[in-house]
Amino acid sequence: MSIPIKDNDFYSLHGMWGAFSCLALGRIGKGAGLVIGDVQPPHTSLFVGYRCRNGKPHLLPFSTGINVGLGEESYHSIDVPAKPPTPKPDCKWFASEEINRRISFSGEEWEAGALCFQVLSFFGKIPDPTQARPSELRSAVRPAILLKITFDNTKGREPMIGFFGLQGIRRPLSDSTNGVLAGFASGDGWGFATFPEKGTDEVMDWSVINTGLDKYVPMRRLAAEGAIRWNIGIGERKTVVVALGSYRDGIVTSGIRAHAYYTTLYKDLEEVLISALEEASESFKKTAILDNFLDNARISDERKFLIANAAHSYNASSELLLSESGEVLYVVNEGEYRMMNTLDLTVDQTFWELQWSPWTIRNELDFFIKQSSYIDRYGIAFSHDQGVADCFTPIGTSVYELPHLTDCFSYMSFEETLNWVLSACLYSYISNDHAWAEENVKVFHDCLSSLMARDKNKDGIMDTDSDRCGGGSEITTYDSLDISLGQARNNLYLGVKTWATYVCMDAFFTRLGATCIEDTKRARTAARLAANTICKKVIPGENFIPAVFESDNKSKIIPAVEGLIYPEFCGAQEAVAADGPYADFIQVLKRHLDAVLVPGVCLDSISGGWKLSSTSRNTWLSKIFINQYVAEKILGFSDDRVKRDAVHAIWLQKGSADWGATDQVDSSSGKDLGSRLYPRLVTSILWLLSPR
Amino acid sequence: MSIPIKDNDFYSLHGMWGAFSCLALGRIGKGAGLVIGDVQPPHTSLFVGYRCRNGKPHLLPFSTGINVGLGEESYHSIDVPAKPPTPKPDCKWFASEEINRRISFSGEEWEAGALCFQVLSFFGKIPDPTQARPSELRSAVRPAILLKITFDNTKGREPMIGFFGLQGIRRPLSDSTNGVLAGFASGDGWGFATFPEKGTDEVMDWSVINTGLDKYVPMRRLAAEGAIRWNIGIGERKTVVVALGSYRDGIVTSGIRAHAYYTTLYKDLEEVLISALEEASESFKKTAILDNFLDNARISDERKFLIANAAHSYNASSELLLSESGEVLYVVNEGEYRMMNTLDLTVDQTFWELQWSPWTIRNELDFFIKQSSYIDRYGIAFSHDQGVADCFTPIGTSVYELPHLTDCFSYMSFEETLNWVLSACLYSYISNDHAWAEENVKVFHDCLSSLMARDKNKDGIMDTDSDRCGGGSEITTYDSLDISLGQARNNLYLGVKTWATYVCMDAFFTRLGATCIEDTKRARTAARLAANTICKKVIPGENFIPAVFESDNKSKIIPAVEGLIYPEFCGAQEAVAADGPYADFIQVLKRHLDAVLVPGVCLDSISGGWKLSSTSRNTWLSKIFINQYVAEKILGFSDDRVKRDAVHAIWLQKGSADWGATDQVDSSSGKDLGSRLYPRLVTSILWLLSPR
Repeated sequence: MSIPIKDNDFYSLHGMWGAFSCLALGRIGKGAGLVIGDVQPPHTSLFVGYRCRNGKPHLLPFSTGINVGLGEESYHSIDVPAKPPTPKPDCKWFASEEINRRISFSGEEWEAGALCFQVLSFFGKIPDPTQARPSELRSAVRPAILLKITFDNTKGREPMIGFFGLQGIRRPLSDSTNGVLAGFASGDGWGFATFPEKGTDEVMDWSVINTGLDKYVPMRRLAAEGAIRWNIGIGERKTVVVALGSYRDGIVTSGIRAHAYYTTLYKDLEEVLISALEEASESFKKTAILDNFLDNARISDERKFLIANAAHSYNASSELLLSESGEVLYVVNEGEYRMMNTLDLTVDQTFWELQWSPWTIRNELDFFIKQSSYIDRYGIAFSHDQGVADCFTPIGTSVYELPHLTDCFSYMSFEETLNWVLSACLYSYISNDHAWAEENVKVFHDCLSSLMARDKNKDGIMDTDSDRCGGGSEITTYDSLDISLGQARNNLYLGVKTWATYVCMDAFFTRLGATCIEDTKRARTAARLAANTICKKVIPGENFIPAVFESDNKSKIIPAVEGLIYPEFCGAQEAVAADGPYADFIQVLKRHLDAVLVPGVCLDSISGGWKLSSTSRNTWLSKIFINQYVAEKILGFSDDRVKRDAVHAIWLQKGSADWGATDQVDSSSGKDLGSRLYPRLVTSILWLLSPR
Repeated sequence: MSIPIKDNDFYSLHGMWGAFSCLALGRIGKGAGLVIGDVQPPHTSLFVGYRCRNGKPHLLPFSTGINVGLGEESYHSIDVPAKPPTPKPDCKWFASEEINRRISFSGEEWEAGALCFQVLSFFGKIPDPTQARPSELRSAVRPAILLKITFDNTKGREPMIGFFGLQGIRRPLSDSTNGVLAGFASGDGWGFATFPEKGTDEVMDWSVINTGLDKYVPMRRLAAEGAIRWNIGIGERKTVVVALGSYRDGIVTSGIRAHAYYTTLYKDLEEVLISALEEASESFKKTAILDNFLDNARISDERKFLIANAAHSYNASSELLLSESGEVLYVVNEGEYRMMNTLDLTVDQTFWELQWSPWTIRNELDFFIKQSSYIDRYGIAFSHDQGVADCFTPIGTSVYELPHLTDCFSYMSFEETLNWVLSACLYSYISNDHAWAEENVKVFHDCLSSLMARDKNKDGIMDTDSDRCGGGSEITTYDSLDISLGQARNNLYLGVKTWATYVCMDAFFTRLGATCIEDTKRARTAARLAANTICKKVIPGENFIPAVFESDNKSKIIPAVEGLIYPEFCGAQEAVAADGPYADFIQVLKRHLDAVLVPGVCLDSISGGWKLSSTSRNTWLSKIFINQYVAEKILGFSDDRVKRDAVHAIWLQKGSADWGATDQVDSSSGKDLGSRLYPRLVTSILWLLSPR
């Protein structure tokens, strides 16, 4: 009921939806633990394992041995015979080859020896807070995940002690709950707990592995390691449930002052943990349905892995806020960079959010209009992001964009405006939210005018830069690739995406009927112009289109076809049909893809994986997934060139093992190049979707 | 107007009173910056210096070069000609010998080249929040300190740029204040700012030292380094004021849920910084008075240093809270250990708090009765502490004490009960708070009965352990020294302290008059018994008393006389007079001190510094200061044995330079052994006091 993983030594982030926090674990011999307001795996130990009477403790290999607590040594004189310093724990950590690691849609499990350690972090749909029943909402936005730990002593001849613990805790939770919970917390910020039964103990000491399994363990409240332990009788197989939760009280953002939304539903960490445990069986029903769904999907195990891993990492970056003035604000933080609601991520994540929380797209779209749109010389445009590290930027600005540049960190005015429109078209079509569409028709109109104004020579594609660039040049979301994807002006990738935007707007205005007839026409004309222009750019005697229509550029890029994804999901499927109104254009792009998707060009000659540009080894997984969907489902590619998922999975499991879901990797080695611990890999959900 | 420091390479903590936060700085080449909820100096850079046109930046040596921000590298492909990675800054850091460091009561200053950098962190008295005028209170508990930076270009031939900045910031403060402030913040938690004048700039970039002094600096909001800069014209000498502030919103403690008290007076960090800058000249008046006071004191420069350094470190550990139920709670955290209101520190810190905030003693005493007293087999007793790291323990328990032990981490029931009584006697006498004394007379009565019950053989000193020890033995505050000071039972140090407690209770009950006549008698009788017993323990043929009256112990200890401090400040001065009712006892102790205060015994044979026990090299500065006062002012020692302050100062400036105000050091080398970054060194205030 889950996907076995051969190369099992890599980090996963198990996000708590909306809480901007996660459990990071998975690298063998490296730290594991809870992270809040960030996504970097901590350098602390996680203890999970068991000991049969007087034998060595057996543990999963998440104890780094870093001493984060107070050293007992501090208290001892140099003169008196000091107690020996805490020795290296004498225990057995399971080796990689003794461990079966399996990933499921809802989480993952680690099986070794008599232990099965399950993490359950993804529980599916999140209802709109403004519409949901309170109890339903309370379950959905609870900042907690669950562990299910099974200790199997059925073959044992001695009693067994099973345990779970973390470094960095400072207090037992029995204190504040009158014994309702057994577990530990680090101040008010995070903790773990179970409902104790007879024989469930809290142990807290300098080193819970050295002493925590002894018969008598002092409750050393000065220490920073704590574990829950259970007795497992001879012949017994015991499964226990542990909740892990996080909590941030008070105002957590600046610029716009806001609380974590869950603070309106839970008073403190203890309430979160109790609720998570009380509703554990409900949660397990949800996870079983999700796991079944993914297990039964007719896709490869590698694709299942890529979807599940991405889901968990996305959740780690998600943050639901309630502003001081009472607005619900949804933010997806940008992995290691922590930029807030980066709009060129939002558009890609739309495919994901439309499945699980369509209202978050609407929330983001509304918030972008209010907070992150601006007017330049050509009309409305949108900012790259809304801030960084919980600091919102002033209205109409981003943390990323700067003037006077021609590459990285320049403005993305044009592409971000496409991104807003495309996200909006996706939302309004898939969610069928006609009322929202009508309310915002003026914004669509303004966007159309603004996009068209940036096409000075009226050939359908952008050829002039925003005055915000201050003489520099706009770039695209592919900021760290070479010019083949980085430059916005006269860019093939952006040209096709522009065509797609016009096509989707055509469909959008058409749905709105007679009042939008002028904009429908304008959009349709612009789309036609763009398609014609791009068709003319095929290099004579070759089947491919150069990445940039300037400076004799000859780069070959896969994302030429990326834009085709949008009509497919915006109610304009006929536009991408082989026999539709743009049949010639689609045919040209299909030939292009066929021409570039060859070894040594856009298939890496060493790994065989997809390489977005022939002139860069920096390739992006989230974008590969979109382009794979286009290749297979829209353009009809079915040969082995589109089945490189095993390579792509290995990039995360080996090449970028230190960094969870990494987006930018070296196409030969899979080594992380950037965008680590990222939310955007959820574009892999496309493999489970088909157009409405 | 301040004390010059020869060995200038050591950490200071500049605490913000009541905010459990500080500016840590002072080690050359190590990190400096703001710390919140802890006292460990951070591994981040502080930039302060200047540059004359096109020359190298000149800086104080607080930039470690640690890159805490986002590496620009993350954004660059491996294929395109990457921008060079951020180079090592090309600048001049002043060397130790080019720097004049001076300490004052209110703060410190660093002078080098054309720069004078002053930190002002101690502003004197704190009024009782339940009595104070709101405006007075708002100034006193504002979580902010001030910097005064002077750039001297009077001899310059080129314009100069002066700057101050920190690593770890994430946003410019002009954003949220509409330009009222220039400065930077790290989220909501801490920041620094000035009121900008013409020519004051905010600069934010990957490396503010590499690029932040250029003519054009992009406001790179994605970076994590920010600085304020000023233009200083040729011939100009400019002094600027920068406020540093901290802010923790929401509930910050567990066990007892409480807010930082200042949150009731300030909405956010911006309000704190604006207020600090608005009232800067008022604050400078306060600091001038304090500095004058210390400068004019008739004590050595080393003593002035020890007092000032201790004051700043004490403030770093101080924390004023408002519980959810509306109670004001004052907590002093225990330096590196972060234990809360450790009662054996409270009693020593009473001398300090009685000068600057006598109401905090009352607050602690009341809070101890309610939260940290318990009843064992012999009666009332008090817990060692009230929690750790902002986690309050359950009523009647500490994080420190554990059963079944005979040394470190055992119970301190007897001594903590002495400590409560002594603190209470000090408070009620010095503050002349008769109403409080009357309200609490029952507690005093119970304490007297409890202490007497622990003296089974009725010789005046403790000889039986609390049943909380579970068969173990009680210890004293000198937990990490050897048995000479660590064991509570039949202990000389504790015996004299017990005598002092009875003497102070005698005075206390006497002041309460006829209704307390019985307790007055009981206390007086017990005091006499204790004095007689101790007098009899002088080793025949020698002049000293062994540290422990058991097991043929022969350790020689200075703190035999420590207890004499209390009668002196509790209205029982005649008890310690050479011709008073305990003249013989005092004479015995004087001879004891004379006998032990010799090189190789209790004067370290290498350093010449005070060594509390002949059998341990672990010596404690806060306790040395108390015993020095007793030796000089009460017992009349005046020879060079009591003038070892230069040695003691060097222990902090060299031996324990990494750890600010360290209490426990090796008496030979001054190397830190524990109790680092500590509040208790404020016992040095005794040098400025005389009995009421």
